Amino acid sequence: MHILVTNDDGVTAPGLAALAAALRESGLGQVTVLAPDRNWSASGHVKTLHKPLRVKRAHLSDGMEALACDGAPSDCVALAFLGVIKEKIDLVVSGINPFPNLGHDITYSGTVTAAMEGAISGVPAIAVSLDSTKLGDYGPAAHAAVRVAREVIARGLPPYTLLNLNVPGLPENEIKGIRITRQGLSVYRDELVERLDPRGQPYYWIGGEAPIGKLEERTDFAALAEGYISITPLQLDLTAHAMIDSLREWKL
Amino acid sequence: MHILVTNDDGVTAPGLAALAAALRESGLGQVTVLAPDRNWSASGHVKTLHKPLRVKRAHLSDGMEALACDGAPSDCVALAFLGVIKEKIDLVVSGINPFPNLGHDITYSGTVTAAMEGAISGVPAIAVSLDSTKLGDYGPAAHAAVRVAREVIARGLPPYTLLNLNVPGLPENEIKGIRITRQGLSVYRDELVERLDPRGQPYYWIGGEAPIGKLEERTDFAALAEGYISITPLQLDLTAHAMIDSLREWKL
Repeated sequence: MHILVTNDDGVTAPGLAALAAALRESGLGQVTVLAPDRNWSASGHVKTLHKPLRVKRAHLSDGMEALACDGAPSDCVALAFLGVIKEKIDLVVSGINPFPNLGHDITYSGTVTAAMEGAISGVPAIAVSLDSTKLGDYGPAAHAAVRVAREVIARGLPPYTLLNLNVPGLPENEIKGIRITRQGLSVYRDELVERLDPRGQPYYWIGGEAPIGKLEERTDFAALAEGYISITPLQLDLTAHAMIDSLREWKL
Repeated sequence: MHILVTNDDGVTAPGLAALAAALRESGLGQVTVLAPDRNWSASGHVKTLHKPLRVKRAHLSDGMEALACDGAPSDCVALAFLGVIKEKIDLVVSGINPFPNLGHDITYSGTVTAAMEGAISGVPAIAVSLDSTKLGDYGPAAHAAVRVAREVIARGLPPYTLLNLNVPGLPENEIKGIRITRQGLSVYRDELVERLDPRGQPYYWIGGEAPIGKLEERTDFAALAEGYISITPLQLDLTAHAMIDSLREWKL
């Protein structure tokens, strides 16, 4: 069993080291880390086609060996499957992101889109995020990731699906359990910050507070708010199947 | 009625000018163009938070006035809704992309993720792509976009949904009609190109041929291959609802 670990915060992020260490200690299999050389948060599902990419030896924040790439998280996964990593890869685990990836955040998220790239490449994939605004200890999230990875290895996932794991920022003994959830609805609170630069030219900065979510039943947002680990199964099929029949009635 | 038009190929791309002109001529409403100042193909769903963004006056390839931004397509839409465009926006139309956006391409696609940003912002949105590898005339795709936009304005779309419109590269009188489709399965044919740079250092380039799709019934790929315009309704909910019950059986 060979596990590819990546993230979107860059190769030196502590969440990546915590995830790689926990997977190594679990004995589930060989662990290879190929992660971006810089932060790619909120950078979406990227395939870099217009320029070459570099892959270099690097070290995680705990000193363990890793590979770093100047592409996006999804580029790292694509390059690994295209042959930069010679050994067959059986599972992709992405994280640990220091902020949750809930609701509509998931298509922006480098953490989740790296896992999507694993699913497109034909292997099971897990995205792991922690609500570290409340607790900065990656231990509980790393342990949860190992538990989920063990089950994924044992059972597999259907083609073109992945798991989105979000862990509340609580000490392990205060986490209430695991809930299987659906993707909730984000409420963005972005605000436009309009200023003048030192040369008197206007610029905009997307500001405001972090998004919150509608705490509807069985959602990722509700599980996390109530102290549960949230696991949302995601699929690459975005078709709004429920709309197809009504669209066929349109006069086009 | 106020229509925001954007794209992912940049403000000078001919597909953007064709789309904006057709929407203006349609009389459906006021048209404002805010598009990236460069090409963002395959750059995914981006929200630029780590740096400021600029918006400047620019011109489309046909000389019409537009606004250009140094952010991603989805940033253009976000900035417009956050107040860079003062007038209320009722519809987002993104395109015309010179290549189809089918199957798993849609989460990478700047064209589609710009429309997603419209749906997140609470208005109906349409992504428009043309298979210009066969015919470089944007006319048929622009006309199709107007027909679909007219119906969307009349009927609305459910919250958090958008339409993904793909037009075959055929003269208008050879297009067989419109099919409402589901998202098909992409078959990527990427290949790793590994070379040495002028200093003897290795680099990688994601090469290979363009993706093809499985021509399964009722898919976007099949419709386009058979000479039909494809309209796929997409949703922002990626939950694999069919997996939820079986995941609850897992021993986590």
